[in-house]
Amino acid sequence: MIHARLAALALLIAGAPLAAQDKPAEPPTPASVVAASRPDEWKAIDPADLLVMELAPDARGARQQVIVQLIPPPFSQGWVGNVRALAKAYWWDGTSVYRVVDNWVAQWGDGEDDPNKAKPLPAGMKPVPESEYSAPMPCKVYLFEKKVLKEECNPAVTALEPVDPYDLKGQAGFAAGWPVAFALGSDGNRVWPTHCYGSVGVARNLSPDTGTGAELYAVIGHAPRQLDRNIAVVGRVIEGIESLSTLPRGKGENGVYDDAKLRVPIVSVRLGSELPAAEQPRFEYLASDSPSFTDYVHVRANRNDAFFKVPAGGVDVCNVQVPIRRVGAKAAVR
Amino acid sequence: MIHARLAALALLIAGAPLAAQDKPAEPPTPASVVAASRPDEWKAIDPADLLVMELAPDARGARQQVIVQLIPPPFSQGWVGNVRALAKAYWWDGTSVYRVVDNWVAQWGDGEDDPNKAKPLPAGMKPVPESEYSAPMPCKVYLFEKKVLKEECNPAVTALEPVDPYDLKGQAGFAAGWPVAFALGSDGNRVWPTHCYGSVGVARNLSPDTGTGAELYAVIGHAPRQLDRNIAVVGRVIEGIESLSTLPRGKGENGVYDDAKLRVPIVSVRLGSELPAAEQPRFEYLASDSPSFTDYVHVRANRNDAFFKVPAGGVDVCNVQVPIRRVGAKAAVR
Repeated sequence: MIHARLAALALLIAGAPLAAQDKPAEPPTPASVVAASRPDEWKAIDPADLLVMELAPDARGARQQVIVQLIPPPFSQGWVGNVRALAKAYWWDGTSVYRVVDNWVAQWGDGEDDPNKAKPLPAGMKPVPESEYSAPMPCKVYLFEKKVLKEECNPAVTALEPVDPYDLKGQAGFAAGWPVAFALGSDGNRVWPTHCYGSVGVARNLSPDTGTGAELYAVIGHAPRQLDRNIAVVGRVIEGIESLSTLPRGKGENGVYDDAKLRVPIVSVRLGSELPAAEQPRFEYLASDSPSFTDYVHVRANRNDAFFKVPAGGVDVCNVQVPIRRVGAKAAVR
Repeated sequence: MIHARLAALALLIAGAPLAAQDKPAEPPTPASVVAASRPDEWKAIDPADLLVMELAPDARGARQQVIVQLIPPPFSQGWVGNVRALAKAYWWDGTSVYRVVDNWVAQWGDGEDDPNKAKPLPAGMKPVPESEYSAPMPCKVYLFEKKVLKEECNPAVTALEPVDPYDLKGQAGFAAGWPVAFALGSDGNRVWPTHCYGSVGVARNLSPDTGTGAELYAVIGHAPRQLDRNIAVVGRVIEGIESLSTLPRGKGENGVYDDAKLRVPIVSVRLGSELPAAEQPRFEYLASDSPSFTDYVHVRANRNDAFFKVPAGGVDVCNVQVPIRRVGAKAAVR
């Protein structure tokens, strides 16, 4: 007989720390690899690179805070610049989360479809050309231990073998702590951020240069990687995504809330660096060019700890969540 | 300037039907391919293969119904037999959804961790051996048009090129309308269902033969394909997953609701065939060995309609949702 709590435990027990030394050695787990990482393998996230979004409290009065890390250079910096300008202008204060689609996205911003009623954008917004959907990747890439590709590129890239199912001429991997895909072409190597669970992107109209950064969405389902190179990824939710993923799904066209009362008011959006010092969120991530990260990828692709009987032998880039933690706290690794 | 509603429309406009004949021809979209399919490419789902789960109404009094399609032979039939016995015994009536983890699973059943208090299982439950985590696949598979693999296997298999990132010796594809992976081995070809968004699986303890089917979970995040061949997939949610995916995430150990008041009561679970005739849900799916399905996969992997500027050139098996619709209604295809 299966007892529920036991079953629940079993589903996650593979994430338990390594056994104490008086027990037989157990195979490493993603959690044990991360727990054994060295402090110098973690990189601080500058509070200036965080958006802190305060939503209205939920029905039970609980605080709803969503923290987004903005993507670093060389990715999407035109849009990221606009996002910073919008935050500094307090532009999102009083706007709302107005669209939620199951296994797809939660979207926020002005949400006004009448151009005459739309909220004016602040000064300093710049149009971003289509060319910024990917970035040059100045390096050569080669096989590393026949399992993981690695190279001292700028940004440094750690890649998954053998190919990215989304680009048969390319590969997926990690750069600067972010999931990416890249392709080696006759016109030079290009690298771009992938759309994974929690990715934050720039909604746009049909023309690829129409996204400003004012209307944003977070992915709340299976990675919609067909959007890669078609919509700009400007960040990822690193805390509080439940405040978006548990929202009721919209019943209007394209999942827009047809009842305005369902819209979730945005109280404020601030850059982390503009909050009082004591409230500035301090996070760090496991560097994707660190030895522990390489081990972590290997273990995620080859689970053989207590629960797993058949190691997969591979993994897709969006199922390798980059470990991120509050400074001084444990990373949530499953 | 981006207007929110326009941006929301643009995100999904690629799913619009083909243009009328007086407009220039537009590239096909997944939705247009499905809309143009022939009626005889759809296969009826027997109501006897559906679980209809009625949850307690939500806070606003709205009905919460989740419909699960049970997986057909040759997959997981030992566990599926137990699930049928549990439904016929009304075993789930009065149990609850007791565990919800963001980007992971919602789990339901007895939820009692004290063996002395656990709800007794009905007669007719059978232990299922580890060997049933995959099935023989009696056929050879070969390249088809250098893009899609196809073969008259039993079950018929349509595969994605070139490899499955989760098994570098294997491939992913579709069989009997379900996402699967398979490997060609010296001990014979094996095929197994993949864990995708909406997949329903059998929670178990550490030993792989401990899952009965009484404690079930649905995937509510990015495909956790490391579970393939390690936990039995017995079905998929085909309607009403929002009733699970929007539930508050559990704050107890492993996402179990620490506050019993948060548990969502299960009013009833019935096989569709045991409901009064007028209430039996009638669904059908687009056969995965049909020409329209092959076209659908191709278009999903190569989006080049109005919104898309860079077709991906590939796709992963869990991002190719098999089209399913209520008989007489339109399939929801994004």
